Amino acid sequence: MRLKHVKGAKEKVENSNYVIHNKAHYKGNMNNLFLNDHPLYVEIGMGKGKFIIENAKRYPHINFIGIEKYDSVLVRALETLEGENLSNLKMLCMDAREIDQLFYREIDMIYLNFSDPWPKDRHAKRRLTSDIFLKKYDLIFRKNKHIIMKTDNRHLFEYSLKTFTKYGYYIKNITLNLYDENLLDNIATEYEEKFHSRGCPIYQVEVLKE
Amino acid sequence: MRLKHVKGAKEKVENSNYVIHNKAHYKGNMNNLFLNDHPLYVEIGMGKGKFIIENAKRYPHINFIGIEKYDSVLVRALETLEGENLSNLKMLCMDAREIDQLFYREIDMIYLNFSDPWPKDRHAKRRLTSDIFLKKYDLIFRKNKHIIMKTDNRHLFEYSLKTFTKYGYYIKNITLNLYDENLLDNIATEYEEKFHSRGCPIYQVEVLKE
Repeated sequence: MRLKHVKGAKEKVENSNYVIHNKAHYKGNMNNLFLNDHPLYVEIGMGKGKFIIENAKRYPHINFIGIEKYDSVLVRALETLEGENLSNLKMLCMDAREIDQLFYREIDMIYLNFSDPWPKDRHAKRRLTSDIFLKKYDLIFRKNKHIIMKTDNRHLFEYSLKTFTKYGYYIKNITLNLYDENLLDNIATEYEEKFHSRGCPIYQVEVLKE
Repeated sequence: MRLKHVKGAKEKVENSNYVIHNKAHYKGNMNNLFLNDHPLYVEIGMGKGKFIIENAKRYPHINFIGIEKYDSVLVRALETLEGENLSNLKMLCMDAREIDQLFYREIDMIYLNFSDPWPKDRHAKRRLTSDIFLKKYDLIFRKNKHIIMKTDNRHLFEYSLKTFTKYGYYIKNITLNLYDENLLDNIATEYEEKFHSRGCPIYQVEVLKE
């Protein structure tokens, strides 16, 4: 997600306690940030943060880190968080390609929600489910590799089912129409609400590699 | 597919040269039927046979065997074949559960087209993509396990993606809307034509296990 320049975004991000500033310092020791040994769930491309913020509220015994490339987007999540005091939520302003420089064998779950589909074949390697990224994820997962992906983009979904399973993941759960299912546990992202309201099917897959 | 009783079906099936009668005799030696060593592709649940007959015509250097449980259905394929002389096509009237009693390490591809979805959970084991069947297929594939499945049934498709990948298959190709793709190579089944004409998306997946 790319938004236009937001005045003061950079400063707000730099001054927020929700944002991890000294990034490399915590590599392999993110639990030191949270002062506990709870599981760590990471959303890559959190956008305005609705999904990860609601998760952090609903599951206080799980630590959450949201990653977003653009400070002009991340600042929207910080605005939502004003007046909240969530000790199990942190954010990182960074490019997903650097993820293996920030984490080391400490993540229990990765969420990929409505990631950029990079529709052109020559950009396939930029998709967050390309081999390049799956290799990076291998380095940052604590033990089992566990990814939950949601998207409205059929071609990205089809591509990802191929890359996941070729790479050794198996499909634990899948739905080709999330809103046809029992949605008790679902937390919608901003994109999801928009696309669902337009009648687009939302695809979801949960994959595991041991 | 179950049709009402068709008069004379049993006799026609018993007397057809397209039908393999002495089943157990050829186990592990189906090539003796075809008198060549071409690859062997099998469709389990061929219905009235449109798919496998058109395949046999289009690919003379591949041997095809169509399996159908009901003689009242298989006889429709024999009617279509009247006046044709396809040396690379045979048929078997049998229950798919017996498949590992009929073949042994000799199949190169299995087609599962619009298989019975057995929608009730307690019947899941009867689905042709349940573990029970995947185990049988292991015994009858020559080397690599290679399955192409088409269906209009979303729940059967989702179920099969889980069972395939849990069992070690990876997804080589997949489409959630076959008729959105380049269809040069597609051969439609009778069901497929019907469901597609009603506007149902047709799902297809190609899976491999080495």
